[in-house]
Amino acid sequence: MDERITDLRAQIDTLNLDLLRLLSRRAEVAAAIGRIQSEAGMSHYDPVRENQMLDALTDANAGPFPDDTVKSLFKQIFQASMHQGQERAKVRYLTSRSTTPADTVVMVGDVPIGSQHAPVLIAGPCAIESREQVEAVAAHVAARGVRLFRGGAFKPRTDPYSFQGLGEEGLRIGREACDRHRLHFVAEIMDASDLAAFEEHVDVFQVGARNMQNFTLLKALGRSRKPVLLKRGLSATIEEWVMAAEYLLSEGNDQVILCERGIRTFERYTRHTLDLSAVALAKIETHLPVFVDVTHSGGRRDLLVPLTKAGLAVGADGIMIEVHPDPAVALSDNKQQIDFETFDRYLDATLYDTKLTAKRTELYGF
Amino acid sequence: MDERITDLRAQIDTLNLDLLRLLSRRAEVAAAIGRIQSEAGMSHYDPVRENQMLDALTDANAGPFPDDTVKSLFKQIFQASMHQGQERAKVRYLTSRSTTPADTVVMVGDVPIGSQHAPVLIAGPCAIESREQVEAVAAHVAARGVRLFRGGAFKPRTDPYSFQGLGEEGLRIGREACDRHRLHFVAEIMDASDLAAFEEHVDVFQVGARNMQNFTLLKALGRSRKPVLLKRGLSATIEEWVMAAEYLLSEGNDQVILCERGIRTFERYTRHTLDLSAVALAKIETHLPVFVDVTHSGGRRDLLVPLTKAGLAVGADGIMIEVHPDPAVALSDNKQQIDFETFDRYLDATLYDTKLTAKRTELYGF
Amino acid sequence: MDERITDLRAQIDTLNLDLLRLLSRRAEVAAAIGRIQSEAGMSHYDPVRENQMLDALTDANAGPFPDDTVKSLFKQIFQASMHQGQERAKVRYLTSRSTTPADTVVMVGDVPIGSQHAPVLIAGPCAIESREQVEAVAAHVAARGVRLFRGGAFKPRTDPYSFQGLGEEGLRIGREACDRHRLHFVAEIMDASDLAAFEEHVDVFQVGARNMQNFTLLKALGRSRKPVLLKRGLSATIEEWVMAAEYLLSEGNDQVILCERGIRTFERYTRHTLDLSAVALAKIETHLPVFVDVTHSGGRRDLLVPLTKAGLAVGADGIMIEVHPDPAVALSDNKQQIDFETFDRYLDATLYDTKLTAKRTELYGF
Amino acid sequence: MDERITDLRAQIDTLNLDLLRLLSRRAEVAAAIGRIQSEAGMSHYDPVRENQMLDALTDANAGPFPDDTVKSLFKQIFQASMHQGQERAKVRYLTSRSTTPADTVVMVGDVPIGSQHAPVLIAGPCAIESREQVEAVAAHVAARGVRLFRGGAFKPRTDPYSFQGLGEEGLRIGREACDRHRLHFVAEIMDASDLAAFEEHVDVFQVGARNMQNFTLLKALGRSRKPVLLKRGLSATIEEWVMAAEYLLSEGNDQVILCERGIRTFERYTRHTLDLSAVALAKIETHLPVFVDVTHSGGRRDLLVPLTKAGLAVGADGIMIEVHPDPAVALSDNKQQIDFETFDRYLDATLYDTKLTAKRTELYGF
Repeated sequence: MDERITDLRAQIDTLNLDLLRLLSRRAEVAAAIGRIQSEAGMSHYDPVRENQMLDALTDANAGPFPDDTVKSLFKQIFQASMHQGQERAKVRYLTSRSTTPADTVVMVGDVPIGSQHAPVLIAGPCAIESREQVEAVAAHVAARGVRLFRGGAFKPRTDPYSFQGLGEEGLRIGREACDRHRLHFVAEIMDASDLAAFEEHVDVFQVGARNMQNFTLLKALGRSRKPVLLKRGLSATIEEWVMAAEYLLSEGNDQVILCERGIRTFERYTRHTLDLSAVALAKIETHLPVFVDVTHSGGRRDLLVPLTKAGLAVGADGIMIEVHPDPAVALSDNKQQIDFETFDRYLDATLYDTKLTAKRTELYGF
Repeated sequence: MDERITDLRAQIDTLNLDLLRLLSRRAEVAAAIGRIQSEAGMSHYDPVRENQMLDALTDANAGPFPDDTVKSLFKQIFQASMHQGQERAKVRYLTSRSTTPADTVVMVGDVPIGSQHAPVLIAGPCAIESREQVEAVAAHVAARGVRLFRGGAFKPRTDPYSFQGLGEEGLRIGREACDRHRLHFVAEIMDASDLAAFEEHVDVFQVGARNMQNFTLLKALGRSRKPVLLKRGLSATIEEWVMAAEYLLSEGNDQVILCERGIRTFERYTRHTLDLSAVALAKIETHLPVFVDVTHSGGRRDLLVPLTKAGLAVGADGIMIEVHPDPAVALSDNKQQIDFETFDRYLDATLYDTKLTAKRTELYGF
Repeated sequence: MDERITDLRAQIDTLNLDLLRLLSRRAEVAAAIGRIQSEAGMSHYDPVRENQMLDALTDANAGPFPDDTVKSLFKQIFQASMHQGQERAKVRYLTSRSTTPADTVVMVGDVPIGSQHAPVLIAGPCAIESREQVEAVAAHVAARGVRLFRGGAFKPRTDPYSFQGLGEEGLRIGREACDRHRLHFVAEIMDASDLAAFEEHVDVFQVGARNMQNFTLLKALGRSRKPVLLKRGLSATIEEWVMAAEYLLSEGNDQVILCERGIRTFERYTRHTLDLSAVALAKIETHLPVFVDVTHSGGRRDLLVPLTKAGLAVGADGIMIEVHPDPAVALSDNKQQIDFETFDRYLDATLYDTKLTAKRTELYGF
Repeated sequence: MDERITDLRAQIDTLNLDLLRLLSRRAEVAAAIGRIQSEAGMSHYDPVRENQMLDALTDANAGPFPDDTVKSLFKQIFQASMHQGQERAKVRYLTSRSTTPADTVVMVGDVPIGSQHAPVLIAGPCAIESREQVEAVAAHVAARGVRLFRGGAFKPRTDPYSFQGLGEEGLRIGREACDRHRLHFVAEIMDASDLAAFEEHVDVFQVGARNMQNFTLLKALGRSRKPVLLKRGLSATIEEWVMAAEYLLSEGNDQVILCERGIRTFERYTRHTLDLSAVALAKIETHLPVFVDVTHSGGRRDLLVPLTKAGLAVGADGIMIEVHPDPAVALSDNKQQIDFETFDRYLDATLYDTKLTAKRTELYGF
């Protein structure tokens, strides 16, 4: 090693420690300002003041850093001081594991969801089409041990002329079938104005992918006390998905289940691309239960078993699947729902894993 | 050419014509059924009947086609017959050029939008932050000839703790500034429950990317008589975007402007990827005016001029751009809004094209 | 049901069977032509002849189908006949399960990969940087039971001024370390012109994502007899990936391992999005072993365990992971490689699953 | 404003300036080290030294910043110093406008491409299929004023059993037709081993999307003196595309034309999504000419005119389009090539813009 370098590096070492001392001193003063601002209910972020400081610095800058570099470095320093003030603010993200380290357990009636509880299956038809259809599915899945029943009464359809669901009558039909078979009823709500009807009939509100950022709906559901199953939007980042859950928690409802259902990509063999990294990250970053919708993500029957196994392996707290007495004549999603006999085979093929994962140890302490 | 092939090909030619005769005969009978069903208000599509026919055919099939091929071919034949019945149904897509060949001209007050009219610029701040800010922008852009003013009062924000807009007070501030400067007011509506306040204050409802498939909102706006500017969702296909517009028209409102604002892709240099093919296809497939939001699509100031020129070249009927007195201190989108001086240079750089495109001949008769 | 409909439907039933008879007759004649063409080594597809037939049909068409529908229906019929001739052709896709129903077992030395064999771990550094580094990793992973060692000597780098690997010297270093520790050596080959050097030193050729459609390279490797590990391209569809493998098999090399390593999407929390549906579908559609590269797909250490478990659950035949003595100073990929201590914990956390999957029953008989 | 805040802010102002002084001093010492390292041919980046410095700093850290923040701030400071040393390094990106501010003009024979020169059209069939086909297209496009002729002799095909091109015979056919009609010949090269044949026959090497990161090929072409047309990969970021061009320039060939041809997205109406922001950014960030391939990007004939106009408006230096005597019988890409009559109409519809853009002023001085 060149001796000159050794000497210069010693100078750098001293300068580093001097810088650290100044930065720490600056952080203390900034914290003092932050406390006064907090008392006065003022925002900590003041872009005008920031610009003045940056102007003063570039005025004083004599190189060798160009002005842009000086600005960029000091913006980092300003941010570090702010974040310091905001450790408390950050703690305010109610969805975050740093706020609530322990897993949330969502209770749907007597069924616990999340944490070390055995994974839960939500099964039922895509849409509620008739009393007979719902009765048939409810009877079948209840007999096989399912406790949560899904069925859509208000259907979000791309085409305005497609079957839009039976509406409130559908909710009543679903409620009655669930009562007959001791099932809990999960149904998708599309607008805050339907809240009263849903409060009367359903046990779990489902928020669909298209409404993940319908903030008026989220706020309204946040004021309910019933659990909400929040699907990830088709092109929502994980961060946006978690922030949508934050809307629910920020209004007081912490009974929130996240549900991954595939994202839009270029791939054509599958309807969407199931993103199991998102399931893992949702469990790492939040304390909420996370489900996987295996019907919509792949859009293919031959993927139901492998995607269920993969979802459970990655730590999902439950699976959602669509079952219909006669998928070929279903009024929606008729390519991907499964009939009773296939559902039975599906259960047999995945049950073994379901038991396994009930004993699972922590995946994410890594 | 082998003589045997020539002979066999002659047989094929005869078989082709025989098949055509049978297919045409079948189509006539199917059409007769369709007419009776229409009279009776019955759906033309009967999946149970289809399955019965397919079963009968595979029962009768003695090869050489495997059953799957027989099914697949007859499904095509069934569909062709159905589509025949649905030519009328297709005509019912009110957004389609096959229904309404002539360009729709949307009137915003005295400003015509669409068809051969000169492209229209919508300018204003991302969010309405204060009376002073709005007055400053409105005065500046009105003095430069702008007629439509944008400004958000209800802001859809990913993070529940971000600035959410001034709400109804923001609408009032925007309205008053627009009145002072003879501007028409465009503002984003996020929920059907806000409709009354918007009806009172705004001239054009904007539906944002996140709400493109908020069907309750779309239906409510479809019953208004004020124009709607409908942004494309971040990962909406062109077909889904047009179907969202169909919701508006199906309820009676044909004053609809489509607005492309970039889609989500893997690219990191730009915030989103502007899809100008979508602008062209929206103009080919529908009769509605189409705008380009140059601020959100690229998310970069250095792209504003080239994307404006490209948008106009591809036939856009207008451009939307965000202007702020001091973007650095804006409460939202502060990296992409431009200040007054930059706005003036923007106008100078694009004006020449704006005039040009006013004289443009038909792009899509190709 | 309207009686008129019943009558008309009976006519349709008869017409359906008449059509089927004609279609079958046509298929037989077409098959006869196909046989003659095959004998003569002629292509079955003759677009000029097709156009003549379509012209004859539209000339003869008197409705009610429009000409376009007639063309479209007959194209389907032509294709069905062709595909019939191509059942044999289709069987020629050597990668397809319909050609080879039984799982292929790839032998790397004495290590069997695929089918019911226990999943195999490939571990080693991203790049071969020095003799000391390779020796350290090889000794560590061999002591933990690893049998396949990876290490790049030729590195595909986006930036031409980045570290490009040690080249042939790197191959020699890797070979020697593998020989010392009874490891099999896997290294990425980027160009067909390097084949001789690789033949001398490596046990498994790796084809990287960027070269998945480097057809010259694929053909050259197809003529080798050493196994090839073929990574999926960053935006390759499953179909394109399988077709790339077909290039290898079509040249005579059936020792092919597919490897999923994440695709490009809009998501920013992960470097790429691991597509486990692709792993499942690759196993359904082909008979080849499929691996999951857990290092590159997520690009995050906290995802290594969950993605490994998910990969094994979905049926992966092995996992690829990057290990480095001191990731912080690695010359490439230094954010995602793991050190020895982390590697040991990784093994502990996943071993249990590894055993489990050795006993797994069929996932895809569903 | 609270007086206490005013006082504390004055302290901050002083600390800011003290920090700036220290940072500048540190930068000077770092630059001195960098100079010594450069003389000695050593890398400026030494991760071991960095780690030692960070350890010393966190050892010394007594708050209030947590260690992570200290590390993060100093990493920024280290990087700023490094980048300072690398201003020279950065200048080494030969593709960058900061290296070469003036537009590069690529000369193809007597045809200048780029800068203020009129946009250039490259036309010809997807694949060279026969002497007759090539003669017909060459004669037609030459008569219409085209000077650059494209035609593929080596075709990269997803399926190994698809038509792979006529190979070297195709190059000869193309060369002869070009000579007869005074055209310059553009053809895709897929592997470095074909270089000699291409050097003999073609005037411009085309590198296709699949080979954008075939670094062996890029380096070989970088040592040629003939122009290279470099297509963007299907999922390549703009940065990766520019870095691929850097491979060519770094080997000594600055006759490089970039060509955008659409990227992979979820949209289904178009084959790919043309990214015109990428064209604009390529022109902003580099000094190279940029083309738009309007045939492959949309994959639809009805988009050829609008995408050409948009491409020229955004500043493209040329357009590439596929023309075939009878697209219906083409051996590849038969849905998107256009026949002679359509080509003539295409020219008429776009010519007016072509003239216009010849007079265009600077788009990007904004």
